[in-house]
Amino acid sequence: MSDAVAEALVARKDEILERLKALLRLPSVSTDPAYAEGMKATREFLMARLREGGLDDVRLLDGGGQPAITGTWNGAPGKPTLLIYGHYDVQPPDPLELWKTPPFEPTIRDGRLYARGASDVKGSTLIAVETVIEFIKAGGCPVNIRFFLEGEEEIGSPSLGSIIERHPDVLVADAMISADGGRASTTLPTISVGSRGLTALQINVRTASKDMHSGRYGGAVRNAIHELSKLVASLHDDHGRIVVAGFMDDLDPIGAREAADAAALPVDEAEFYGEIGAAPYGDPDRAVRERITLIPTIEVNGMWGGYTGTGSKTVLPCEAHAKVTMRLGPGMDPARAQARLREHLLARAPAGVALDFTGRGGGTPAFTLREGHPLLAAAEAVVRRTTNRAPVRARAGGTIPITAIFKERLGIDTITFGFAMPDEDVHAPNEFFRLSSLEEGLRAWPLLLTELGKVAPEALRGQ
Amino acid sequence: MSDAVAEALVARKDEILERLKALLRLPSVSTDPAYAEGMKATREFLMARLREGGLDDVRLLDGGGQPAITGTWNGAPGKPTLLIYGHYDVQPPDPLELWKTPPFEPTIRDGRLYARGASDVKGSTLIAVETVIEFIKAGGCPVNIRFFLEGEEEIGSPSLGSIIERHPDVLVADAMISADGGRASTTLPTISVGSRGLTALQINVRTASKDMHSGRYGGAVRNAIHELSKLVASLHDDHGRIVVAGFMDDLDPIGAREAADAAALPVDEAEFYGEIGAAPYGDPDRAVRERITLIPTIEVNGMWGGYTGTGSKTVLPCEAHAKVTMRLGPGMDPARAQARLREHLLARAPAGVALDFTGRGGGTPAFTLREGHPLLAAAEAVVRRTTNRAPVRARAGGTIPITAIFKERLGIDTITFGFAMPDEDVHAPNEFFRLSSLEEGLRAWPLLLTELGKVAPEALRGQ
Repeated sequence: MSDAVAEALVARKDEILERLKALLRLPSVSTDPAYAEGMKATREFLMARLREGGLDDVRLLDGGGQPAITGTWNGAPGKPTLLIYGHYDVQPPDPLELWKTPPFEPTIRDGRLYARGASDVKGSTLIAVETVIEFIKAGGCPVNIRFFLEGEEEIGSPSLGSIIERHPDVLVADAMISADGGRASTTLPTISVGSRGLTALQINVRTASKDMHSGRYGGAVRNAIHELSKLVASLHDDHGRIVVAGFMDDLDPIGAREAADAAALPVDEAEFYGEIGAAPYGDPDRAVRERITLIPTIEVNGMWGGYTGTGSKTVLPCEAHAKVTMRLGPGMDPARAQARLREHLLARAPAGVALDFTGRGGGTPAFTLREGHPLLAAAEAVVRRTTNRAPVRARAGGTIPITAIFKERLGIDTITFGFAMPDEDVHAPNEFFRLSSLEEGLRAWPLLLTELGKVAPEALRGQ
Repeated sequence: MSDAVAEALVARKDEILERLKALLRLPSVSTDPAYAEGMKATREFLMARLREGGLDDVRLLDGGGQPAITGTWNGAPGKPTLLIYGHYDVQPPDPLELWKTPPFEPTIRDGRLYARGASDVKGSTLIAVETVIEFIKAGGCPVNIRFFLEGEEEIGSPSLGSIIERHPDVLVADAMISADGGRASTTLPTISVGSRGLTALQINVRTASKDMHSGRYGGAVRNAIHELSKLVASLHDDHGRIVVAGFMDDLDPIGAREAADAAALPVDEAEFYGEIGAAPYGDPDRAVRERITLIPTIEVNGMWGGYTGTGSKTVLPCEAHAKVTMRLGPGMDPARAQARLREHLLARAPAGVALDFTGRGGGTPAFTLREGHPLLAAAEAVVRRTTNRAPVRARAGGTIPITAIFKERLGIDTITFGFAMPDEDVHAPNEFFRLSSLEEGLRAWPLLLTELGKVAPEALRGQ
C-alpha cells in the first residue's frame, strides 16, 4: 500500500506545495513577542489541516510557553506507536535587507522555494503531516501516530519539560521520527545518527555605573567593550580550539565508528568554504566533518555595547554584552560545560570588571542512535530503496533538543528523517527548500512508516 | 560699565533660565538625520534672539552640512574683534530608558537643570549670547563681536573647513572666546589652557559572505565577533596602556609646566571613581590628571555584530563592527595616529579575516594656549575677581576642534570660557547644568569682554 500512498502524494504535489506556501506566509518567530499573532495563526492552520485529514484528539499542549500541537491516530492495534516530531516555529528573519525576496512571501526561483522556515522545518514537517493524512484517506496507517509539533524549537524548547510533565498520556510511544533534519550532503544519501548538544549563556560586563565622556574619563577608566573583547579573545587559540580549562574533559574520545562515519562523508572543502565565502579554519588535527559534528564549540552569536547608531558618539561605555551558545560533543553535560565557561571568565575578570551571566542554564546533551537500532535499519532500508544507494551515517552539527530530551525523559529513541539540504541557508537570509526534496520526501515517508509497521513495538523500545 | 551689565543680567536671570529651557526643548541632535527638524528649530530660535538683541548680519553660514549661525556687532572701532564660539547641536540622548526625566523636557531638581545639552553646551552658549545683548542694550560692547555658533561640534565638525573657506569675511578676528568648556574641578576655579585632539575610525571585520548556522558551521569557520574581539584586545596592555607600535612616537614629552599644572589640580580619586562607580585604572606611571588630559587614548565607543535582539539566535556571524575614537596628546598628528592604528590591525588580521575601515580620516590635533598670552591673562584676572582665588591652569581631556582648526586655518588663538562642571554627565543620560553656574557665567562674561577691550588688537594676534 505504501507505493500507492506515495503515488497519491506525488500526484497532489502541487496542492501540497500551495499548502506549504500558505504555511510559510505565517510568520511564526518564537523568540520575539512581536510575532505572537503569526504563531497563533500557524497553530490554527496546522490544527485545521490535521482535523480535516482525519486525525483525532487534535489540540494544543500547553507547558507555559508556546504550546505544541498534537493529533493522534490509533487504528493499528498491535503495531508500534510512533511520535512524529516537527516544529512550527522559525528563526527571526533579520537582517531583512539581505533577503532578495521578503522572508514571509514564499517565492520560487530555479526549483527552490525561498522563505524563512522553508528548510527549517516547515517543508519536512508538512511532508510528514500529508503522508499520515494520505494513509488515513487510503484506509489506515501501518503504525499508530502521535503528532508532536513544537513551537519553541528555535529558542531551545524552554517549556518542553513542562509539556512532557503535564501531558504524559499524549507522549506514550515506542519511538519517534523527527522531521527536523535532513541530509548532511547534497550529493550522498545520508542517515542522521546523532547531533551535538547545546547550551546558552549571556555574558554581561560592567565597568562603571554609567556611560562616560571619552574625553573626560578616557585613559583612567576601564571600557566595558575592551574588557568583554579580552574575555571573548581568551576562549580560543589561533586555530579556534577552545582553551577553557576543563571544558573538553567530559567529551567522549572520537572512536573508530565515529571516525569511519566521518571519513565516509568527507567535506569538499572547496565547496564548503566557497559557498560561504570563508577561509578554512579550525582544529588542524580534525577533519572538517569532525570539526562540525563531533567537537564542541563556544560561539558568540551576538555582541553589543556603547553607541551603535548612525554617526559617531564619543562615549566610554560602561556595559557590554555577548550572547553565547556552546555546541556540545558526545558525553558532555550542558551544566558542567556552562560552569567551566563561567569559571574561565570569572578567573579572568580583573578587579573593576563586574561580570554576570543571564540565561536559563541547562541545555541539551548530544544524542547518538546506537548501531543496530531498528529505527536505523528501517531508515537505511528506505533510503536504499528510494535512492538505490547505501546511505552514509552522518551526525548533525546542530542540535535537536527533542531527541535527547525524549530519550532522557520518556526512554524513547528518535530517527531523524527530514529533507533539508546543508546549503539551504537556514538561520540566515534567503533560506530555501528544494522542490525536488519535497517530492523525495513524499515518496520516502510512506515507505518508512510501512517499514516500521513491520517491527514489533517492544523491539523499538528499551534499546 | 561691566558691573552694571553683570547686575542687569543677574536681575533677569529667571527670564534667561526660561529662555534656556526653551532652547533645551528643541532636540538638536546633529548625528542623526531623524532630528533635522529639531536642528532647524534650534537655529531659528537662536537667530531670532540675536536679531532681537541688536546683532547685525545675523545669518546661516553653509558649508555643506549643518550650517553655523553668525551675527556681528562692530560698534567698537580700534578695539579687538572677538569671535565668540558656541555650538547648538547636542549628543544623542540614548539610552533613553536611563533618563529620570525626558532628555528634551528640561527639569529642575536640587538646583540643577536636567536636559540633553544643558551642560554641553547650550547653557554656556546662552550666557555668551545674553551678555553681548545686554552690553548692546546698555550702549555698546567693549569689543567687536562675531558670533560663530556651530551645528556639528558633536560629530567632529565635518564641514567646518568648508564654512571657513566659503565665508572668510565673517571669520576675520583677533582672537576667539569659546563657551564650549568649563571648569576641570567642582571645587577649584580653573582656566583651560589646552585640550586633547581627536580622530575617529570605524573597524569592519568580515569572515564570510553570509551569516551561518552555528550548528552546521561551528568549529570550522571564523566568527567575525571573535576576530574583532581579538583585534580590540590587542590594543592595550593590562593597565590600559596603548601597545600600538609607533602610536605615541609624536607625543610631546610631559614637561615641567604640564606636570606642575597637573599636580596643582590633583584628582580626588575617591570622588572621581566613586561618582562613576568605577575602579582606578590606567597607566600607573601617570597621575590620574595626566591620564585624562595629556596622554592619548584609543577607545571603542560602540561595537556590534550578530544577533542582538530579544531571545537567542544560534547564528555564526560573518561581520562585526567597532566605532573607535582616539584622543590625541600634544604633538600628535591625527592622520599619523590613524595610520599607526590601521597598520597595527592589518598586521594582526589573519588570512580569512577581511578588514576595512570607514570614517572621514583627518581629525583635530591637541591645542595649547601658551604661557603669557593676553587671553590667558584676561581670563585669569576675571576668575581672580569673581572667585577671589587664583585659578589653576587645566587642560581638557576632551576635544574642542574649533580651537585647533582656528589656530591652524585663521591664525587666531582661543580662550575657553564656559561654565560646565566636570560631573554634569555630558554625553550620558541625565546631563545637567548647575543653576549657580548660570549666575556665575552671567557675572563673569561681562568682565571678560571688558578686560579684552583693554588689550591692543595686535597683542592678541601673532602669538
